[in-house]
Amino acid sequence: MNEQALVERIRKMAGDTATKLVLGIGDDCAIYRPKAGEDLLFKSDQLIEGVHFLSGLDPASIGQRALARALSDIAAMGGTPKFCLVSLTVPRGWTQSNILAFFRGLLRLAKRTGTTLAGGDLAHSGKLYCDVMLCGAVPRGRGLRRDGARAGDTLWVSGRLGKPWDRPIQPRLELGRKLLRRATACLDVSDGLALDLHRLCVASGVAAQVDRVPAAHGATIEHALHGGDDYELLFTLPPRTSGPRGTTRIGKIVAGKPGAMLFEGRPLKPRGYDHFGIAIT
Amino acid sequence: MNEQALVERIRKMAGDTATKLVLGIGDDCAIYRPKAGEDLLFKSDQLIEGVHFLSGLDPASIGQRALARALSDIAAMGGTPKFCLVSLTVPRGWTQSNILAFFRGLLRLAKRTGTTLAGGDLAHSGKLYCDVMLCGAVPRGRGLRRDGARAGDTLWVSGRLGKPWDRPIQPRLELGRKLLRRATACLDVSDGLALDLHRLCVASGVAAQVDRVPAAHGATIEHALHGGDDYELLFTLPPRTSGPRGTTRIGKIVAGKPGAMLFEGRPLKPRGYDHFGIAIT
Repeated sequence: MNEQALVERIRKMAGDTATKLVLGIGDDCAIYRPKAGEDLLFKSDQLIEGVHFLSGLDPASIGQRALARALSDIAAMGGTPKFCLVSLTVPRGWTQSNILAFFRGLLRLAKRTGTTLAGGDLAHSGKLYCDVMLCGAVPRGRGLRRDGARAGDTLWVSGRLGKPWDRPIQPRLELGRKLLRRATACLDVSDGLALDLHRLCVASGVAAQVDRVPAAHGATIEHALHGGDDYELLFTLPPRTSGPRGTTRIGKIVAGKPGAMLFEGRPLKPRGYDHFGIAIT
Repeated sequence: MNEQALVERIRKMAGDTATKLVLGIGDDCAIYRPKAGEDLLFKSDQLIEGVHFLSGLDPASIGQRALARALSDIAAMGGTPKFCLVSLTVPRGWTQSNILAFFRGLLRLAKRTGTTLAGGDLAHSGKLYCDVMLCGAVPRGRGLRRDGARAGDTLWVSGRLGKPWDRPIQPRLELGRKLLRRATACLDVSDGLALDLHRLCVASGVAAQVDRVPAAHGATIEHALHGGDDYELLFTLPPRTSGPRGTTRIGKIVAGKPGAMLFEGRPLKPRGYDHFGIAIT
């Protein structure tokens, strides 16, 4: 059974418990609808030493990164972050000042983005594990899903792709909010453009043609297409609509086998960075 | 710096981001208030091999346990569970059927308690690590906190204490709901009666006298007082109020040094099971 099939199995096993949700397993975030005009967005994201980052990253950067990854998913839904829960397991060698540095890095970004630290859990074990659960809000029914792209839409990406993995992540929250009521589909590029575009196309039942890709300084086209950890937004707009400042039109959505992709006229494989690494959401 | 002081530091660092919450760091759950007559409860709980359970527990039992621990915290607030996010990291030796068994165990309990699996994250790494984020709801302003006990209240516990750690956990959700509008304080006994009672007393600024403790079959009094993993509810009631069926009056709340405790007239130390093991909530 491949990973996708495994997720399908889990989704089916969850099946009839999903009725309370507007959007359950299958997108960047799950949406639970309270009765007050807004949908709440929830995302949990693990960050594990040796899997999502290499040993040697300093604790403050790890904290920043743990939250930023989850914020990027809220941004991809057009959401505004509300609060997070942080579960952290540290190696025996970590001192309390390491732990504080972790939270400092995390809270600096939390304050800047209006995210409240609402709780969590600490433990000691062999290596560093972190899991951030994030809640965000979006006007009811307006969450940017990945399944709304239609043939004829244009395809856009923010920023430049193929950046070094260990730089601080800047979640595109402002851009995500601007895309509310404009984009037909959106997700964040966390595992490489090719793989994430494939996910968008499969979810929407469409194919895509990519004409160009804005590579970061020093990045190869290969890296811009298949490298992970960009945390830019990939989105589709209806015909004759322009993307906001700082975004680049990279191609278009076409009818075709769902998930099929071309780059400069040649088949583009959905190869990217996959840590096992299955987002169930 | 001890663990408590460390949590205080983190709480202070989080400080001015906490304004969106009715109840932030410092109780079983954080409460975020939507505008529709109910408070939502959120809890995340790690379950780590070698820390929270021993190797050899079967995958379905691990899944059951991971959710049950978080449900117990929702029960302790008098809440009704809504949905959960599950982050799971498995050892390389785990097969996909192990993973499915994990989710089967988890989802069986999820369905029985009305909890929707809303998403999560899977990864491969050295040992088994699981983090469950759970959301529950409670009528607005009615969540059972641990800081409401007053001198003169009676002290109660559900079930029997000192049970074997590897039995399936039965979260006391029905009891928790019955205690809404009745109990003055409540928490779940997850780290041993003595340690959890101490937390209740410190939060409420009171002392306690314990006269007896209902020990499980085969458990010593020592184990009933200081063993962990009971997941029963410990709560206080106003004078002249009876506890629901299946609960036992074990003592009373008195004025005194906050956190001071007596058992059968002798000082009781707040010794229990602490895995590092700090709930930030």
